[in-house]
Amino acid sequence: MIRRSKVRELQARALELFDKASIRLAAQERQHIEVADFGLGDPDREGAQIFTFVQTDRYAAKIIALVPGQTLPEHWHPRVGEDPGKQETVRVAWGTLYLVGEGPATPMRAAIPAGKGAVYTLRHEEVLGPSGSRTFSPGEKHWFQAGPEGVVVYSFSSVARDALDGFTDPGVQRVTRIEED
Amino acid sequence: MIRRSKVRELQARALELFDKASIRLAAQERQHIEVADFGLGDPDREGAQIFTFVQTDRYAAKIIALVPGQTLPEHWHPRVGEDPGKQETVRVAWGTLYLVGEGPATPMRAAIPAGKGAVYTLRHEEVLGPSGSRTFSPGEKHWFQAGPEGVVVYSFSSVARDALDGFTDPGVQRVTRIEED
Repeated sequence: MIRRSKVRELQARALELFDKASIRLAAQERQHIEVADFGLGDPDREGAQIFTFVQTDRYAAKIIALVPGQTLPEHWHPRVGEDPGKQETVRVAWGTLYLVGEGPATPMRAAIPAGKGAVYTLRHEEVLGPSGSRTFSPGEKHWFQAGPEGVVVYSFSSVARDALDGFTDPGVQRVTRIEED
Repeated sequence: MIRRSKVRELQARALELFDKASIRLAAQERQHIEVADFGLGDPDREGAQIFTFVQTDRYAAKIIALVPGQTLPEHWHPRVGEDPGKQETVRVAWGTLYLVGEGPATPMRAAIPAGKGAVYTLRHEEVLGPSGSRTFSPGEKHWFQAGPEGVVVYSFSSVARDALDGFTDPGVQRVTRIEED
């Protein structure tokens, strides 16, 4: 649960990051930036701001803004019926992304949120700047953290069904609930 | 057939447009901007510069630069075996796009290339600026022309098989042949 005022604040910070990346949103689109707290209630720490350019039953294209130090929790895209699971390519438009995926442990610039070591299991980091990109196979786990200035990341994928994503943290609820204030 | 020197010139002009749109390409990516002349041999008039962010067997994301007045010929994305045909969303990142699609005739800012009225059959124009977008169903015909400053356009889609696209102009060959000079 997050307050409407916090949603508005994070939408405004996302717009500042989109401006730095020269990503233009139409006036009506600016109202539709999703602020996700993943049900954890502390979106400055674990959360993401997401604008969906397009979503059809065949593909999706989104742009994600993470404010400095913000972490998008460890997750994967499972099989859904006939669909083997979402295949996804991320590409940095602006800023620095700490991308943590499957593989042998590496030195880490990303800081695991305090007390959350058990639900961030991956320790293989790539540091991506503008034009850096990575494609994830269905089922492949990953988590993201913004560098010190924040980051703007494209997500290109097969059909997205965010509400069915798997998360390591059992406390996650993918659908954000907003409290009016 | 186009000369290598013309390919290099149009790649450089595309990079200038990508810079205006703040689209960053890595050094090695800059060599991979496709210059398409559609087999027509006059790419300043009918052509496109295309960089593929990602292409898998499930989706594609590309960025297209058209120089001022350049026209991407009338085409559609046909059924290929089990695939009903490419579904595609274009979104303007920078500049002005004259998008000509199916529908009743409208006033046109786009100028049909001289002598080519028979192979540009559509007369329904939308003028899109930054953040303007449009999704095409499989089989739906369309052609594009850049406004006076050129245009940079994202293309998000289901799997792309450009070499199998249909073109109204029987003179089109989708695969560009380059002559070394």
